[in-house]
Amino acid sequence: MTHQLLSFSGSMTLASICLAQSGASLSSFPPEARAAYVEYEKALFEEARPDRLRETHILLAQEPHIAGTEGDARTIERIAGIFRELNLEVEIHTIWPLLAEPISAEVQIIAPDTVNLDLKEVPLREDKYSSQATIGWNAYSGSGEAAGEVVYANYGRKQDFETLRRLGIDCTGKIVVARYGGNYRGFKAKFAEAAGAAGLIIFTDPADSGYMKGLTYPEGGYANDCCIQRGSIMTLGYQGDPLTPGIEATRDAKRRDESEVALPRIPVQPMGYGPVKEILSRMKGQAVPDGWQGGLPFTYRVTGGDELRVRMRVEQKREIKKTANVVATLRGATHPEQLVIMGAHHDAWNHGAADPLCGTIAVIESARAFSKLAAEGKRPARSVVFAAWGAEEFGIIGSTEWVEANRANLMKNAVAYINLDMASMGPQFGGAVSPSMRAVVADVAATVPAPGFTGTVYEEWSARVGAGGGVPTFGDIGGGSDHVAFLCHAGIPSAGFGSSGSRGTSYHSAYDTLVWYWRTVGADYGPAQMMTRMSMGTAARLASAPIIPLDQCAAWDDLGKQLGDLMQRPPLKEQSAGAPRLLLQSVDLSQRGRGALSRATAHAAAGTITPDELAAVNRTILGLERAWLSEAGLPERPWFKSLYASPDEDSGYDAWVLPGLRRAAERNDPEAAAVGIELLGDALSAQSRLLDSLTHNRNERSE
Amino acid sequence: MTHQLLSFSGSMTLASICLAQSGASLSSFPPEARAAYVEYEKALFEEARPDRLRETHILLAQEPHIAGTEGDARTIERIAGIFRELNLEVEIHTIWPLLAEPISAEVQIIAPDTVNLDLKEVPLREDKYSSQATIGWNAYSGSGEAAGEVVYANYGRKQDFETLRRLGIDCTGKIVVARYGGNYRGFKAKFAEAAGAAGLIIFTDPADSGYMKGLTYPEGGYANDCCIQRGSIMTLGYQGDPLTPGIEATRDAKRRDESEVALPRIPVQPMGYGPVKEILSRMKGQAVPDGWQGGLPFTYRVTGGDELRVRMRVEQKREIKKTANVVATLRGATHPEQLVIMGAHHDAWNHGAADPLCGTIAVIESARAFSKLAAEGKRPARSVVFAAWGAEEFGIIGSTEWVEANRANLMKNAVAYINLDMASMGPQFGGAVSPSMRAVVADVAATVPAPGFTGTVYEEWSARVGAGGGVPTFGDIGGGSDHVAFLCHAGIPSAGFGSSGSRGTSYHSAYDTLVWYWRTVGADYGPAQMMTRMSMGTAARLASAPIIPLDQCAAWDDLGKQLGDLMQRPPLKEQSAGAPRLLLQSVDLSQRGRGALSRATAHAAAGTITPDELAAVNRTILGLERAWLSEAGLPERPWFKSLYASPDEDSGYDAWVLPGLRRAAERNDPEAAAVGIELLGDALSAQSRLLDSLTHNRNERSE
Repeated sequence: MTHQLLSFSGSMTLASICLAQSGASLSSFPPEARAAYVEYEKALFEEARPDRLRETHILLAQEPHIAGTEGDARTIERIAGIFRELNLEVEIHTIWPLLAEPISAEVQIIAPDTVNLDLKEVPLREDKYSSQATIGWNAYSGSGEAAGEVVYANYGRKQDFETLRRLGIDCTGKIVVARYGGNYRGFKAKFAEAAGAAGLIIFTDPADSGYMKGLTYPEGGYANDCCIQRGSIMTLGYQGDPLTPGIEATRDAKRRDESEVALPRIPVQPMGYGPVKEILSRMKGQAVPDGWQGGLPFTYRVTGGDELRVRMRVEQKREIKKTANVVATLRGATHPEQLVIMGAHHDAWNHGAADPLCGTIAVIESARAFSKLAAEGKRPARSVVFAAWGAEEFGIIGSTEWVEANRANLMKNAVAYINLDMASMGPQFGGAVSPSMRAVVADVAATVPAPGFTGTVYEEWSARVGAGGGVPTFGDIGGGSDHVAFLCHAGIPSAGFGSSGSRGTSYHSAYDTLVWYWRTVGADYGPAQMMTRMSMGTAARLASAPIIPLDQCAAWDDLGKQLGDLMQRPPLKEQSAGAPRLLLQSVDLSQRGRGALSRATAHAAAGTITPDELAAVNRTILGLERAWLSEAGLPERPWFKSLYASPDEDSGYDAWVLPGLRRAAERNDPEAAAVGIELLGDALSAQSRLLDSLTHNRNERSE
Repeated sequence: MTHQLLSFSGSMTLASICLAQSGASLSSFPPEARAAYVEYEKALFEEARPDRLRETHILLAQEPHIAGTEGDARTIERIAGIFRELNLEVEIHTIWPLLAEPISAEVQIIAPDTVNLDLKEVPLREDKYSSQATIGWNAYSGSGEAAGEVVYANYGRKQDFETLRRLGIDCTGKIVVARYGGNYRGFKAKFAEAAGAAGLIIFTDPADSGYMKGLTYPEGGYANDCCIQRGSIMTLGYQGDPLTPGIEATRDAKRRDESEVALPRIPVQPMGYGPVKEILSRMKGQAVPDGWQGGLPFTYRVTGGDELRVRMRVEQKREIKKTANVVATLRGATHPEQLVIMGAHHDAWNHGAADPLCGTIAVIESARAFSKLAAEGKRPARSVVFAAWGAEEFGIIGSTEWVEANRANLMKNAVAYINLDMASMGPQFGGAVSPSMRAVVADVAATVPAPGFTGTVYEEWSARVGAGGGVPTFGDIGGGSDHVAFLCHAGIPSAGFGSSGSRGTSYHSAYDTLVWYWRTVGADYGPAQMMTRMSMGTAARLASAPIIPLDQCAAWDDLGKQLGDLMQRPPLKEQSAGAPRLLLQSVDLSQRGRGALSRATAHAAAGTITPDELAAVNRTILGLERAWLSEAGLPERPWFKSLYASPDEDSGYDAWVLPGLRRAAERNDPEAAAVGIELLGDALSAQSRLLDSLTHNRNERSE
């Protein structure tokens, strides 16, 4: 899915940039162990092999494998087969979620003339895989028929429908046409349905992803006129199987009735810009407002006029189907119960060479490397889990069900989650990362070479953003892929890794094939090798360092920065004492935390710490993470339990940091702001007590 | 011409905004005279009549009237006829500049296939005037033939040709295709020629002025696919007739030889986006870099490849031709030698309903109003001059020749110049104004009602820019229209008034007709009425107030602000003492000037000033303006004599404030910076002495 695009802006502070050069994530190793670790990491990096990445890529992208289909079942077996060969503990975690499948669809102009419009990509001679795709479809669309006049709704965002209302344009009974971009497509459908639309067409505009961006497939990599972005349009107050929120979607799970779940009711159909041009070019109403014009060669209009009528019919089957996660574990040498998890989904809308497989192969290649070194007797202290998730595309289902099934153990023992959905898309690394993980990721970036660049990932990144006057920063992590349940439901710090720098997109289309990937991203697997190394290095440090290298101080610092912004907004301004008090608490925690952690680190490095004390420090570090959870969950979204991060509620695209306060600001709700401040205050107090006990223990012994 | 677009950003300070509400431009009137003046101004405003503006518009836009043609001669007679009827002193100031006329042109694709491309707009049933235009042409193009491969150069700016060089693309012998926008078209030709191009095609891109901006003509007002922007491509180090720099282009003037003048040598042809699409869509080379994509429905490419060849042939005749300015004077009541001048050109590329006539009619309507009240015995103290300039479109020729012919008298007696080129284009007022004139213009804006808005021009302006968080500001005035010779050659403070807010452009095309104007700007002449009132009010105050309301302090304040910016740039940073010294001088002048002027104003209002003293104050005020002149002129542009303002040298679009320092900064030339600082220091010292004498005189008498 990965509908949250990689953001290179964010909140990494100069402090954490310095960490990148200081290698703080290694500082709790005693000197000899550190040297051994560095050798181990180098050996892991040596094992990230382009030829094998390519081989795995070809194996997994050989056929379409939509969740719940036979291709999906074969893909699951292929991945399980690889993991088994690696002597890992392999779990095929089978689930039975409500999925959907396309039966048929039609879109036609019925007046003033009759024109049937294509809903399928043209197979290309240059790409043998391009003939095997389904029709274009948006999973969970309502089934049925609609016909009416046409309204163009720009990106179909909240503000776009507000503009339509301001212009006096009624969507009731109309076919709304909206372009991809600006929000998660599910919100387009939700807003269109709320506005009374009879049906919705979502299309890829050439200004956003087509010829105005660059040459189109097959000459270039951008969307040609028939290229269709598929994708789910489910938007619920939780992730995962729509019928089993909060519990595992086992075969016999107690399910909600489908009628109780707010799935889309109107027909929704994605299209390419070629056929949609036929509709838009026939519109006769007023010209669009500023910012609504797309890249088709005429002035866009808001209304079609009463002579233009479009009919659409969508038929889909919603059904409980079987699919599975494949989860392989490399047991840790000394703390096997503690888990560092990396994963990417395996299901795709078609072949999925880019989405997800260019990330999935990095997970598998990482598993090979860890496994090979384990066979030589080298393995990290903690366990490393390699996961290929099912049915991500339908609503981040597989990973969510696994987290729901394992939540208690994960909350106790999970160190961190690294997500690699569609991760190897170019030579330029980036990521959205929980604050406490940023230092270790930056450290690793300073050791991995960047492809096609003389220097490390960190140096390439610095040079690139430095050219624009910036410094490398991580994005805030929120929704959009398989980290959501880990981060927001179980309080596990998470990173979503990605890379960019290729000219093109085949996103969710029939052209997301090996041929497209080789032509557009390249056939040398340099980006995939980089991403394998980035994730292996991050996982290895998290799994090996005596003191778990998660820096909660960065989260407290980030909280201060976020509060600084939020405090400017009315409902928080009114809480005159509340927000500043949180700020003071976070500053205090950050100072005390830095002191406590650096003392513990120094003792660990000097060998002046007992195993019990070390265990207590690491328990505290994980406890500080989990303290952000509120079991009652967020307002109106109880499944989302992190007070620190969530997906946003208005576009599905953004991360909301401190979502309780952010929501209060967006809704201008002073009461919610007061509640949010109180809950955060409780979390900070709990963290303060955890720090106290740590400091107290240490003080008794050595100061 | 008006190639400097109206800019609403600029350097009007909060101080001058307060002046707008203080009515400072009236404060030197004794109370009774002030009341009488206010009545007079009101009566003038009453005389700005939409029906007459429309009538004049129809009279002057009835036929094409390119400078030097028979239509031009008839237009000159028509304007002179109106002025004569108004009992003004009318001068038909005949000049003989080097003009050009189109003979023929052809552009064709000659390989891989043969396609002849249209170079003329399609006549429209909806617009009876649209059939009378010439072919598209760029005046002063080289005549001849060229054929070759194609290179696309984006906007043909300095940085675009630098990008081509960086990409390793050689323009030698190629047909360069560049789009309009981003600079003055003459620079596109200059840079293309310098890069070795064999020929240049300049086209209007739909992303900049066509369907991507809004509906096209005739349904809307934007450029349709055959719409061609004509215009001159002369770029010399001076304005006016290319053969007689610095002197009047009389019939027998001593002329330069045409071969000594750097007129374009390669053929240059403007085109619409319909025919240019045929060329661009056949290009086969690499895709364009970021920011180069236009609005045609395919990816633009930098090179055409060796299979695509274009041939072009342009034939123009350059010839010394007769044309004229029409200059009408309303004698002032008490100081007829002092001149407030307003003007707009009368020549056009075709009918010129928008450019220039919607401004020209405001000049003529102003003349009517002043004349009518003069007939009733009411006239300002100083003379008001109403000018319709010839051959502006070829190179700001008529006004320049008139200034060159009258420079000595103008430097002694001209108070200010107000330019109204193409001024009435919508309900939203704006202007680029010399700092010393800003207060009086803002004062007038606070008295003129805005069309379609309940409130004044100043209130509409505040509401509009306030919505974006800004305050009304004037743009810096530099090049682009008939104020240049006044401002830069004779040191006369100038204003370029304009208005906007209509959806469309017919700029320099066959569609610049009455029908286009009525459909796009409107047929109610509200904007023209507003612009008539703005210019009448400004002229009347400048011509009537006992103390000329020019506030040099605003210029010194602006100098401080400009220096603040320029001092950040290397060559001025190195002049460690020079720029700060200028800054101190300007602060001192501003403080002393404010004191001296407010004392003089108070005495004038109280009637405690003698006529001789008043005359001395006004001489000082004009002397302060002229002190910005340096007879040696700017480096490599000796015709430009103002140290305060000039057109820029790199794009022809910007104003350069403090051009000596600005050029030094752009060229990174510390030596030039030192010279520039010294010259400005001299100017400030001269102004200081002028202020001294004024203060000294006043002190002796009354303090």
